[in-house]
Amino acid sequence: MSRGSLFIVSGPSGTGKGTVCSELIKCENIFLSISATTRNMRVGEKEGVTYFYTTEEKFKKMISDGQMLEYASYNGNYYGTPKKAVEDMLEAGKNVILEIEVQGALKVKEKMPEAILIFVVPPSIAELKKRLIYRGREDRDEIKRRIGEASREFSQLPKYNYVVVNDELQRCVNEVLDIINATNEKQRIIERLLNELKESVNYDD
Amino acid sequence: MSRGSLFIVSGPSGTGKGTVCSELIKCENIFLSISATTRNMRVGEKEGVTYFYTTEEKFKKMISDGQMLEYASYNGNYYGTPKKAVEDMLEAGKNVILEIEVQGALKVKEKMPEAILIFVVPPSIAELKKRLIYRGREDRDEIKRRIGEASREFSQLPKYNYVVVNDELQRCVNEVLDIINATNEKQRIIERLLNELKESVNYDD
Repeated sequence: MSRGSLFIVSGPSGTGKGTVCSELIKCENIFLSISATTRNMRVGEKEGVTYFYTTEEKFKKMISDGQMLEYASYNGNYYGTPKKAVEDMLEAGKNVILEIEVQGALKVKEKMPEAILIFVVPPSIAELKKRLIYRGREDRDEIKRRIGEASREFSQLPKYNYVVVNDELQRCVNEVLDIINATNEKQRIIERLLNELKESVNYDD
Repeated sequence: MSRGSLFIVSGPSGTGKGTVCSELIKCENIFLSISATTRNMRVGEKEGVTYFYTTEEKFKKMISDGQMLEYASYNGNYYGTPKKAVEDMLEAGKNVILEIEVQGALKVKEKMPEAILIFVVPPSIAELKKRLIYRGREDRDEIKRRIGEASREFSQLPKYNYVVVNDELQRCVNEVLDIINATNEKQRIIERLLNELKESVNYDD
């Protein structure tokens, strides 16, 4: 069995990247990364399923020990991606999807350069505005703020491995699946050649 | 016209990456990067075509000024990739191919993270050995050395964007052309969205 690969999905709010990820994890061998958090468990949530729940003290120790691929605080609580949880899934041959914003994505890429960065974009900026309005964010200032945010995120696009346009959900999901399959194929080729090299050295034929 | 993209092609000797690159530059809008060197011009060579010829003093100044994407010395002469020459070609919308070994490739990637790293591999290690022998490198120690070198290079494979198997030349060339086309398409999408964002801010519709 080959090692799985890590895919980081980003994109401005309103591009539908969440829906794309929900579709992806319906497929075989594709799983969402589970974050750690210091916030309290809510009714219906489950340890190790919705989140890994931990204390602020332990969370900060994980940060200082370099065990967090990325983290952020929000409303007084910490949220982050524990490296070990991701590593264990990859080792088990699973493909892992991490849906995070651009700053976090680039931090993970620094620590795991083999991670594949995928940026989901809307077909056009006009369409992005339409979707934000449709989602009930009709406040003109709020939409302007989000477009400004999108603008800053877009400036990091060249650092992403792939840009996929979410024009039609299933087509977009298929494009990401093609990326996942091509990455897995690359991984198989690497592992096969490294094995052949090892044997070649062992037997010196 | 969209900005061109930079493609760095590496791979162990014997994989035929040179032949792949020769085929690529026969295609429209794909050009080899031209290196700078301190060695003397030979008969039949041309300034700005085979190399940019320069003095050791000027070459070293370019290094200290950060104007070299990567460089190496060989047989007492310096060889390197001048950043400006690459930038000018990209600005002019040209796709640039840089055929260099792994260490240099990773240095360029640090300075230009948008560069696409392509690793050309043989279909198998047995086939690689066969090709090295066929190329007249029958010396057992030399082949062992080259396999060892390939082994070290392969360990950097996860940092490459793409791994292409050179099993059949034209199929391999087509696969690289697909990568180039997909990258150009990504670039067009980025530029279009950034333009739309700019207009959106200007007109604030």
